[in-house]
Amino acid sequence: MSNVAVVAVGGNALTRADQEGTSEQIEDNAAQVAAGIADLCRAGWRVVVVHGNGPQVGNLSIQQEGGVDLVPPQPLHILNAMTEGQLGSVLVRAIDSVLGAGSAVAVVSHMTVDRTDPAFETPAKPIGPFFTEQQALDLTAERGWTMREDAGRGHRRVVASPLPVEMLESSAVAALLSADKIVLAAGGGGVAVSHEKGRYVGVDAVIDKDWAAARLARDVGAKAMILVTGVDAVSVDYGTPRARVVHEMSLALAEKYLAEGQFPAGSMGPKIRAASEFVRHSGGTAVITSAERMLHALDPTTRVGTRIIPEPVESIA
Amino acid sequence: MSNVAVVAVGGNALTRADQEGTSEQIEDNAAQVAAGIADLCRAGWRVVVVHGNGPQVGNLSIQQEGGVDLVPPQPLHILNAMTEGQLGSVLVRAIDSVLGAGSAVAVVSHMTVDRTDPAFETPAKPIGPFFTEQQALDLTAERGWTMREDAGRGHRRVVASPLPVEMLESSAVAALLSADKIVLAAGGGGVAVSHEKGRYVGVDAVIDKDWAAARLARDVGAKAMILVTGVDAVSVDYGTPRARVVHEMSLALAEKYLAEGQFPAGSMGPKIRAASEFVRHSGGTAVITSAERMLHALDPTTRVGTRIIPEPVESIA
Repeated sequence: MSNVAVVAVGGNALTRADQEGTSEQIEDNAAQVAAGIADLCRAGWRVVVVHGNGPQVGNLSIQQEGGVDLVPPQPLHILNAMTEGQLGSVLVRAIDSVLGAGSAVAVVSHMTVDRTDPAFETPAKPIGPFFTEQQALDLTAERGWTMREDAGRGHRRVVASPLPVEMLESSAVAALLSADKIVLAAGGGGVAVSHEKGRYVGVDAVIDKDWAAARLARDVGAKAMILVTGVDAVSVDYGTPRARVVHEMSLALAEKYLAEGQFPAGSMGPKIRAASEFVRHSGGTAVITSAERMLHALDPTTRVGTRIIPEPVESIA
Repeated sequence: MSNVAVVAVGGNALTRADQEGTSEQIEDNAAQVAAGIADLCRAGWRVVVVHGNGPQVGNLSIQQEGGVDLVPPQPLHILNAMTEGQLGSVLVRAIDSVLGAGSAVAVVSHMTVDRTDPAFETPAKPIGPFFTEQQALDLTAERGWTMREDAGRGHRRVVASPLPVEMLESSAVAALLSADKIVLAAGGGGVAVSHEKGRYVGVDAVIDKDWAAARLARDVGAKAMILVTGVDAVSVDYGTPRARVVHEMSLALAEKYLAEGQFPAGSMGPKIRAASEFVRHSGGTAVITSAERMLHALDPTTRVGTRIIPEPVESIA
């Protein structure tokens, strides 16, 4: 569909770093996201929203351990599904409040992963509460968790972050887009699943939401993918006299910058890689920008946001 | 759609009364539900599944309080949305395991309620953990909860159970049925919402899943509604020498039995009322039966299950 845009919004856009994550805070933040989505829709885009869930699944993990003497804790893949319900509901209500009843629909999404993905050999993504060393040893023995010491703050579970292979619900998302719905999908990167012995089993892993967005954007034939972040545009040579904002990059230029180590591995690097993956396979445009700049950054005539495009272009003066 | 059946399954079919609610238990039970759904699909029905969530939302409530010193507890309407994610995910994986990837899709659903519904004057549905009298007083003061003493076991929150008015996602469900999806919707009766001052706000209430199923079944033009319960069929004059199983009831006969007080208010009564509501407004057939008997009970030539139909019929010899 030529007018489909997939928008990826971080979980920290819904619970900000200085917030504890009350439902009121999440609702207020969701209203801001909804306003940006509504602008895109009014400009003629059909929109899929992929939200992150880091702070929210972290809180749920803490609550699971808080009730462990009374109630069996659920595994991580179930907590991920719970946050798809939680944040999907808040975002649907926020969008329907702006655009009317039934405008948005949240789909509980599942992403297959490959058990031979090298990410499973070195789980590195920390998740949930901190534990003492003895608790960490017990959790490894009782639940098979991989625990790691976290810079003097205690021991924490780490899980793998494999690449997404296939989203079980991609044809459902396409059907909902055809029915003029704004679709919330692949929340938190989607529930990781693996097909084993004829069954889809949940996998305790975290799929990067930007990579999930790139996978889904390709599957539904999106023309654009927008990765929303805390800055208006991407910079290179940061912290040097040559520091400058880049508003447009060809795939080749993005790869050159990646090879130079221009983008930190923990933040902008994975975004540039996921954006490039989408552009390479779809021929569409990927945009990295702030929530406030989404609509303008999509416009190829503006010097707003950072666009990654398939072919080299003349530098815009 | 003439071949749509809406199937309502209790939350206690997914966490049985003698189970504590581990993810393994819920998965095993979901596999049994999925087998029944698959039979319906193979017989040519398009299926919407409405699941309950009583045991699961109860466990989540206990975990919220267990983590209350570290993490802000989420309100009931958010916990309901979380169980739509949780149980939607388990059921999608169970159904896709039988019928193939992408066969099923879970929609996080919202049901509007009327704030003037008399149910809000007398909240009666108990939810979540037991508290001491002092804790109950504190919770009323701090969170505005209505608390009630529960037969010597402690104090418990009670919430209203209003009737559903409109499901925000009913056109999305119709679009997914047209795309040949099995749809999980209105889980736990749907997240209760109210339109106030231009916004859809969450309401801490519990919508009966059978009434939610009846509402959704009417909205999508279903031909049949199946309310799954622990017994194969409905009995009347229970506990008397005249006790007998009823396999078919006209609306008029169902109303006569209801007026006689044949059905307990806490269990079969609401099911018969929700079933009658669907039949009266749709002209379709409602079936009350066990998970194992669903397909046979739909067949009007069998003496299996209990069917409620619009017009009086000759008694089947």
